[in-house]
Amino acid sequence: MKLLEDKILNESVVLNDEILKVDGFINHQVDPKLMKEIGEEFAEYFKDRGITKVATIESSGISPALMTALALGVPLIIMKKSPSNVMKTDLFHTEVVSFTKGSSYELTVSKSHISENDHVLIIDDFLANGEASTGAIRLVRKGNATIAGVGILIEKSFQAGRNKLNEAMIEVYSLARIESLKGGIIQFKKQEN
Amino acid sequence: MKLLEDKILNESVVLNDEILKVDGFINHQVDPKLMKEIGEEFAEYFKDRGITKVATIESSGISPALMTALALGVPLIIMKKSPSNVMKTDLFHTEVVSFTKGSSYELTVSKSHISENDHVLIIDDFLANGEASTGAIRLVRKGNATIAGVGILIEKSFQAGRNKLNEAMIEVYSLARIESLKGGIIQFKKQEN
Repeated sequence: MKLLEDKILNESVVLNDEILKVDGFINHQVDPKLMKEIGEEFAEYFKDRGITKVATIESSGISPALMTALALGVPLIIMKKSPSNVMKTDLFHTEVVSFTKGSSYELTVSKSHISENDHVLIIDDFLANGEASTGAIRLVRKGNATIAGVGILIEKSFQAGRNKLNEAMIEVYSLARIESLKGGIIQFKKQEN
Repeated sequence: MKLLEDKILNESVVLNDEILKVDGFINHQVDPKLMKEIGEEFAEYFKDRGITKVATIESSGISPALMTALALGVPLIIMKKSPSNVMKTDLFHTEVVSFTKGSSYELTVSKSHISENDHVLIIDDFLANGEASTGAIRLVRKGNATIAGVGILIEKSFQAGRNKLNEAMIEVYSLARIESLKGGIIQFKKQEN
């Protein structure tokens, strides 16, 4: 998506070879018009697939996921991060381990919001090693719902997330795919999907 | 706002005399069309006031705040909840103490996103004792910005938040004002503002 790639080139900051800071328009200050265009792009790509719900993980995925849900005409589910060992019986929960950060959290969703009749599109801001996305997928499947795909704003193609999801037969649609951040230079991968 | 009041009557759960659960359409599962209408309502009410940014606190205020920012044509700022004692020099921070929950957290915003040229509208889902809203106001003022007002989805009028804000000369516009939840019955206050 050229609009997003241009924003990344003009307004993001490369912190090191692995970290891109997009605080100015996605994560901390949010550009609502960009989010609307992103939502419409995801909705166009994933239309006609019988999607019943969009899901995301709080909190930086909420803005693009809300706009996608609006464009698809379906509800949005916000999966919650909680301290480990939440054991409420009315929640599905799964542990998400971040190897890069060396930390883990419990991801939860209310049992009343996901059922076997649901076909769920997962939206998130970043795809790196796929820990968050695979956690979200586990939660959806605990509710016996099916996965329509994963929509990502910024994919770090030099990390393992996409391969992990593709091996699990999950389709990934990323609006911007970054091949390298080496030397502070943002290099996009040619779009193939 | 009749649409929101009807949703509250039909889809919320009164947990006790003080707590209303709106997990099905605001906090956990989100109704995007309702959020769009809410955003347009706030934008209509607060238009022509020179608002430069909408601000909210992660994460349940993000959806209505994004739609308000979109309708006003300005950026959204997501204030972050962090463990106490975050002392990064590039952040404004303030402590928010919740007397009801008996807990506190550090609310932060990047110094690069709020300046003396900003006139900020704060949007949040609930107004109870006003701890979150007054914390957000303190942060905005640390950046030498001014407050255009506070927009709230659901005000618990039997708690002190509105009075606290009004005493500080802050205008509050609440889309639904609940006078009482006693006995499991939702009673709305007559709208005066």
